[in-house]
Amino acid sequence: MFYDCEEIESSANGLGRIERELPDWLDADLAILGEPTAGLIEAGCQGTLRVVIRTGGTRAHSARSWLGDNAIHKLAAVLDRLAAYRARIVDIDGCQYREGLSAVRIDGGVAGNVIPDAAAVTVNFRFAPDRSPEQALVHVHEVFDGLDVQIELTDSAAGALPGLDRPAAAELVGAAGGVVRAKYGWTDVSRFAARGIAAVNYGPGDPNLAHTRGERVPVQQITAVTEVLRRYLTV
Amino acid sequence: MFYDCEEIESSANGLGRIERELPDWLDADLAILGEPTAGLIEAGCQGTLRVVIRTGGTRAHSARSWLGDNAIHKLAAVLDRLAAYRARIVDIDGCQYREGLSAVRIDGGVAGNVIPDAAAVTVNFRFAPDRSPEQALVHVHEVFDGLDVQIELTDSAAGALPGLDRPAAAELVGAAGGVVRAKYGWTDVSRFAARGIAAVNYGPGDPNLAHTRGERVPVQQITAVTEVLRRYLTV
Repeated sequence: MFYDCEEIESSANGLGRIERELPDWLDADLAILGEPTAGLIEAGCQGTLRVVIRTGGTRAHSARSWLGDNAIHKLAAVLDRLAAYRARIVDIDGCQYREGLSAVRIDGGVAGNVIPDAAAVTVNFRFAPDRSPEQALVHVHEVFDGLDVQIELTDSAAGALPGLDRPAAAELVGAAGGVVRAKYGWTDVSRFAARGIAAVNYGPGDPNLAHTRGERVPVQQITAVTEVLRRYLTV
Repeated sequence: MFYDCEEIESSANGLGRIERELPDWLDADLAILGEPTAGLIEAGCQGTLRVVIRTGGTRAHSARSWLGDNAIHKLAAVLDRLAAYRARIVDIDGCQYREGLSAVRIDGGVAGNVIPDAAAVTVNFRFAPDRSPEQALVHVHEVFDGLDVQIELTDSAAGALPGLDRPAAAELVGAAGGVVRAKYGWTDVSRFAARGIAAVNYGPGDPNLAHTRGERVPVQQITAVTEVLRRYLTV
């Protein structure tokens, strides 16, 4: 099944359209997403959420800074927690899911002579699929607990457990040589996981090169993946 | 002497043009700058400088944050120093000069799913006139000493000592009732101070209202300042 618009807003995702209009097409024992995985089975996927963490203060002329309350200075405590954060590494079905809590944007300031009354840092949490988005958000609130900040959730998407104990998945893993690793990043496997269908990422091409100028696919990986899929589907 | 463009880039300052083209006009025992000072003598002025403090890192997909080096997280140490900074209060000729070291802008970030490789905070230092701009810059470097940052000076202007021991200044202070306070903010007094001419700020209008919607001048301050200046100039 080929579909379009997987990389933009999820409302445009072609698989979502199939799910809404022709859900029967998605009934299956196993979904294989043709993601670039360097020819290895990459199981499940991380979840992701983003929050904007805002600080407030009081504007003043910077020549009289003691009359103000500097919102940028209050981000110090937020960044301290991020810099000190030690991300969890979780083993699920033999797949190692690494989490990450990262500032991806920061901004604040009014003018070169003004103590700013607002500043914000956007934080992206990539979480292992043993947490739901709701649990992940609770965790983010715990990380910044006690700080004088406002936390606004701006988007989130569930991860997917590897589901390798399902017979159809185990057979494919066997056909592919038994090597499995965790998928980093969010993919449409989570859509199948939400429907109770085992799903893995499997395809030629190095995921670390995706979206870069160096993006390319070795022919031998195309051949190998084709052979594995043919063997798996015809046995 | 009336002149224009005092509030924009210093290259456009009308007093600077007079200084370049008709420097004799500026020979004097005392310069009185008609700044809003609420009808009090405000002596000298603070100096100001701005630096941009930059952090660097390595870009990576935020789903694989451990492959990157987050430049925003490195600003934590910069903001910690700013938040902990205790500004000096210096008494010069009975005038209390308060300093201030403040973040006035912060920015960084590439996209919502990218570990950023660059971030920056702009810091404004308002310093007492017992420091030169060069000494002030040395102090700023001391404050951030040992951090993994680049510090770029983007502008600076010298302050001005009150110079109230000059006879002409002392006479004006006496005529104005003997009350003197420090000027906060940078003004053209520093231009006269650099020429060895005592200079004070003195005029009607609350400086705390300058540039705000509430800007106004009480008539009684206009009258009082006029009377003081007339008395001072005619005695």
